[in-house]
Amino acid sequence: MTTTVPETAVIPNFDDEDGGDRKMVIICSKGSLDMAYPALVLGNAALSEGIEVHLFFTFWGMDMITDKTMDHLKFSPVGNPATHMPNMVMGLPGMTSFATHMMKKSIHDLEIPEVREFLELIADAGGHLWACKMSADMMNIKEDDLFDRVDDIINATDFMDLSVGAQTLFI
Amino acid sequence: MTTTVPETAVIPNFDDEDGGDRKMVIICSKGSLDMAYPALVLGNAALSEGIEVHLFFTFWGMDMITDKTMDHLKFSPVGNPATHMPNMVMGLPGMTSFATHMMKKSIHDLEIPEVREFLELIADAGGHLWACKMSADMMNIKEDDLFDRVDDIINATDFMDLSVGAQTLFI
Amino acid sequence: MTTTVPETAVIPNFDDEDGGDRKMVIICSKGSLDMAYPALVLGNAALSEGIEVHLFFTFWGMDMITDKTMDHLKFSPVGNPATHMPNMVMGLPGMTSFATHMMKKSIHDLEIPEVREFLELIADAGGHLWACKMSADMMNIKEDDLFDRVDDIINATDFMDLSVGAQTLFI
Repeated sequence: MTTTVPETAVIPNFDDEDGGDRKMVIICSKGSLDMAYPALVLGNAALSEGIEVHLFFTFWGMDMITDKTMDHLKFSPVGNPATHMPNMVMGLPGMTSFATHMMKKSIHDLEIPEVREFLELIADAGGHLWACKMSADMMNIKEDDLFDRVDDIINATDFMDLSVGAQTLFI
Repeated sequence: MTTTVPETAVIPNFDDEDGGDRKMVIICSKGSLDMAYPALVLGNAALSEGIEVHLFFTFWGMDMITDKTMDHLKFSPVGNPATHMPNMVMGLPGMTSFATHMMKKSIHDLEIPEVREFLELIADAGGHLWACKMSADMMNIKEDDLFDRVDDIINATDFMDLSVGAQTLFI
Repeated sequence: MTTTVPETAVIPNFDDEDGGDRKMVIICSKGSLDMAYPALVLGNAALSEGIEVHLFFTFWGMDMITDKTMDHLKFSPVGNPATHMPNMVMGLPGMTSFATHMMKKSIHDLEIPEVREFLELIADAGGHLWACKMSADMMNIKEDDLFDRVDDIINATDFMDLSVGAQTLFI
């Protein structure tokens, strides 16, 4: 399909700071499976509604975009009273793997993609993935260690620029 | 009292995407007592200021609106260094009940309502309560299992629609 | 230097609810070292970009601005699967101090200030620090117990007023 843009056409400026276009910025600061999914699900839903989406990964959230860790995020039930199991039981060897297994099964049964595939989908749909420079420095993570769909490693000041006019969530 | 609306009257549209009316959307993702209250207190304060309020319950936050669990939310001190107690002590049997008891007492002494009553107040004041469809599916929670003041079970795309122009918080 | 303001000058109103001026409100609800820094780093970056910044401390976040505790925030690895260590090991005596020591070292190596000094910098740069009244009442914290750069103890309704038109983050 070809589209002819007349010379006098008004090209919409999607980077317009004051524009009416909706933008959502999600800060991902956790490395557990149960706090990775909310960002992925909301980011994906926002993109499907035509919203500009930026995911900014910081602190433990770096695990979501680090090649070595992103396929092995775990759900830990310790210290989470919502699991309705006593802490003594939750601290036993094997309980984290068990809880992680159960959660992955539920996610799979609902046909929700795994973390890496979900991030691929988000990037394919035009979502942006940003790594936090301070966190990368703290954890000695280099650009080569990151998932290849990450746009760039940026600092907190860059973050302020990209979040102009955005709805913001800290997860 | 009767009000006559002239045929040419401009009816204010409170769903206007660009409207000046303030809206607050709070995503409740935790099932612990200490992370349930911030949403309840902020939601209630926002309503008292005339702000449109939507609480969206997802993941562990489903416990806040599930009939069977909402009256038994616990405060777990494990893994929370702010309690200034060693993890070994915190993991002992009885410590979660003890910490929960102390916190409930403080809340009661300040005449702050319990979770169910607080949600009633919020719904009575016009606040909206929404359950997350994906979470309900994952946890096999049906509409009948939910607190009867919940407006509906909605998906992430519906969430994007209701949060247009809102200030957003992820708790 | 003297500036003469003509009588007819239009004085910009920075409190203008609909104004173009950017504002960021960060709710600090955690008392752990790893969740204290995101608020400090983002608040500081926002100020350096000329953004109006308000930090509102509530629940465990009160530890960040209480004189007795603010210099001793800890990083607890229990229940945080992102640390890649089994919960049994993480619960052992000494592991919290060890993890806290390692994290403080990383922060120091990057020349990032400690919590108290960071809050000083933020206050010096014009950032506002607010304590939550309900939390202060619950924890029996008085104004004298607080870091002296805290602007005031305010309630949730005051919070709604100061957050008009702001981008909001709940950490």
